[in-house]
Amino acid sequence: LARTLPHETLTRIAAALCQAVGAPVAEAELTARELVTSSLMGHDSHGVLRLPEYLDLAGQGGIVPGAPISVERTSETTAVVDCGFNFGAVGAHRAIEEGVRIARAHRVGCVITRRCNHVGRVGAYVQAAAAQDLIALATCNSPVHGHFVLPWGGKEGRLATNPIAYAVPSGGDPLLADLSTSVAPEGKVRVYKNEGRPLPPGWVLDADGRPTTDPAAFYGPPRGGILPLGGPTGYKGFALGLLVEVLGSALAGVSTTDQTVRGNGVCFVLIDPAAFCPIGRFKELVDGLIAYVKSSPPAPGFEEVLVPGEVEFRALRRRLGEGVPVDDVTWRAIADHAGRLGVGVPNGLASAGG
Amino acid sequence: LARTLPHETLTRIAAALCQAVGAPVAEAELTARELVTSSLMGHDSHGVLRLPEYLDLAGQGGIVPGAPISVERTSETTAVVDCGFNFGAVGAHRAIEEGVRIARAHRVGCVITRRCNHVGRVGAYVQAAAAQDLIALATCNSPVHGHFVLPWGGKEGRLATNPIAYAVPSGGDPLLADLSTSVAPEGKVRVYKNEGRPLPPGWVLDADGRPTTDPAAFYGPPRGGILPLGGPTGYKGFALGLLVEVLGSALAGVSTTDQTVRGNGVCFVLIDPAAFCPIGRFKELVDGLIAYVKSSPPAPGFEEVLVPGEVEFRALRRRLGEGVPVDDVTWRAIADHAGRLGVGVPNGLASAGG
Repeated sequence: LARTLPHETLTRIAAALCQAVGAPVAEAELTARELVTSSLMGHDSHGVLRLPEYLDLAGQGGIVPGAPISVERTSETTAVVDCGFNFGAVGAHRAIEEGVRIARAHRVGCVITRRCNHVGRVGAYVQAAAAQDLIALATCNSPVHGHFVLPWGGKEGRLATNPIAYAVPSGGDPLLADLSTSVAPEGKVRVYKNEGRPLPPGWVLDADGRPTTDPAAFYGPPRGGILPLGGPTGYKGFALGLLVEVLGSALAGVSTTDQTVRGNGVCFVLIDPAAFCPIGRFKELVDGLIAYVKSSPPAPGFEEVLVPGEVEFRALRRRLGEGVPVDDVTWRAIADHAGRLGVGVPNGLASAGG
Repeated sequence: LARTLPHETLTRIAAALCQAVGAPVAEAELTARELVTSSLMGHDSHGVLRLPEYLDLAGQGGIVPGAPISVERTSETTAVVDCGFNFGAVGAHRAIEEGVRIARAHRVGCVITRRCNHVGRVGAYVQAAAAQDLIALATCNSPVHGHFVLPWGGKEGRLATNPIAYAVPSGGDPLLADLSTSVAPEGKVRVYKNEGRPLPPGWVLDADGRPTTDPAAFYGPPRGGILPLGGPTGYKGFALGLLVEVLGSALAGVSTTDQTVRGNGVCFVLIDPAAFCPIGRFKELVDGLIAYVKSSPPAPGFEEVLVPGEVEFRALRRRLGEGVPVDDVTWRAIADHAGRLGVGVPNGLASAGG
C-alpha cells in the first residue's frame, strides 16, 4: 500500500532523521532534498526508499554524518575530494561544486572522489553543473562486491552497473542522461524475482554462462551475471563500463580488486561551452537540436520522441503537485526510525509505523 | 579477389598518391600511415578502402590538400582547430597534438574541430594521446545528410552513427575503444544489401517505423532508419549519440540542421592521470584491472575475455607480418588513380589496374 506525501513534508521528515543521526542541519537538508528530488523525478529506486538504509548505515558507522570533507586541488584544473564517508550526496555535491568552480575559472576541470558513500542519482550532480551553464559528464563505479555485470564474453561478473551521466544546458530544461552501462541494474532483477516473473530475454546469464530468463538462476548460488548494455554488441556496453571503472578506481589510486574499498568512485568532467561559443548561441543551438530530434514522427508504439531528461522533468512537475508516492515497506521503516530517534512525523502518518 | 600487400608498400603508394594530388610530404605520409594503420588493425572500412574516395574528393575540391590549419587557443585549456578541409587525418592529428600539449601543461584539456574532413578511425587519435600517458576521450559527429540513426521512439533519422572513442594508458597496449552509438553503421547494412542477405533482427526500422530485416526496406525510398545502440534500452544509445552531436555541432557554434555543413565535428577531452595518481602506479592499477577482467572464465561460444583494443592490437601484429589485404575493387581504383596521376606502383601490382 503506497501513500503519497507532499514533497515538503517528506523533505522535512528526512532532514530531521538525518539530523537525528548526527548530520549538521545543512548536510541533513541537502541529503533529504537529494533523496526527495530523486523520488520527485521518478527515480524511486534512488529516492526516499534509500533513507532507511542510510539511517541504518549511519547507526553502524558506514556513514559518518558530519564527517569533514577535504578538497585537495592537485592542479589548477583537477581536484580530489575525500568525502570521509559522510553521506554520499554531501560528498558528491562538494565535488561537483569544486568542479564548477574550476570550470568557471579555467574552462575545463576534472574532479574525483575518495571514500565516498552511495551518491544516489548521479544525474543530480551533472544537473547542478548544467544549471551553472556548464556541460558536465559523470561516471560512478562500485567496488568488487557489487560486480554483478559480466565482461563481454565472460561468465563471471567483473564490473558494477557503472552509470554514465551527462547534462547539457539549453534554453529550457537541460539535456540530462543517467544510464547504467549494463542491460539492467541488479535491483530490477530482484524485483522480477520477488514478483515471481520471468526476466526479459537478454538480461542475464546463469553461472554456466547460458542465457536464462529465470531470476533464480541468476542469483544461484552459484551466481550468474548481468549482461553489458548492447545485446549482440554488448562489447560496447562493456567498453563503457570499463572506462567508468578506470575513472572510479585507478584514477583514484585504488585497486579494483581491493575487498576493503566501499562506496562509489565518482569522476566529474566539466566543460564551459562559453570557451567555444557564446553561451546564448550555444543554448539556441541545443534548443534547435532538441526541436529537430523531437520533430521525428513517432514509431508505432510511441507517442512522441523524448530527449534525455524529459521523462524526469515531467515527473518532477507532476509530483511537485501530486506528492511523492512512498511504498509501505519504506514508510514503515522510516516511521520505525522516527520512533527510535524521537523524530515526530506529522499527524496521521505516524500510525503506519505501528 | 583480395590481394595482400606489405604495409610499407601500401603506405608508400598511398603517400605518393596523396602527394600527387597536392599534399606536402609530411601530410601525405601522415594520411597514408593513418589509412594503412586502420587496415593493419583490422578496421578495413576505415582503412585503405577510403583512399580512392579521398583522392576523388581532392580532385573535386572537397579535400584541400595542404590547406593551412589554424589553431585558436580560446583559453589556457581549450582550443578550436580549423582544419581548412585538409585531409581529415591531418586536421584531427593537429587537434589531438594541441590537446596533448594542453593536458601536459594544464592536466585537462578540450579541443574541438571545425571544417574537418572525414577523420577515419577515431581511435587513432585517442591512441596517440594514450601513448603520451594521457587518458583521452573523443566524440565525432556527422552532418545532416548522414542522419541514418533514429532517435529513440522515432521513425526518421536524426543522428549519424556518432562514435565515442577512448584510450587509457597501461603497462602494455592501451585500453582502446571506438564504438558507434548505433546498433550498426550504415556501411554494414549496405554490405548485407549487396550480398542479398537479411539483416540481423533489431538493426533497422522501415520508413513506417516497423522492425524489418530487409535491407531494401531500410533504403527505400522512403528511407527507414538504423536503431540506436541498446536494443530494448535503445534510449541509452540515443542519449550517447545526442551528446556526441552536441559536442560536434553546438559546441562548435554550428547548427545540426545546417545543410551546408560537411565533414566530422570532433571533440577531444584529455585528462592527465598523473594529476591524481603517479603514472607508474596508475598503469599498474590499469594492468591489474585488465588481468581481473580477463580472469573471468569465458561464456559458451567465447574462448576468452578480451578487453577493448585487444582484437585490434592482435590484428596489427598479425598483419605487420602477413601484410594488408586489399579487396579488388579498392585495388583497381587505387591503380586507376596511380595511372592517372603518374604514380608508379611496384612491379607486378600495376596490372590489376588494367
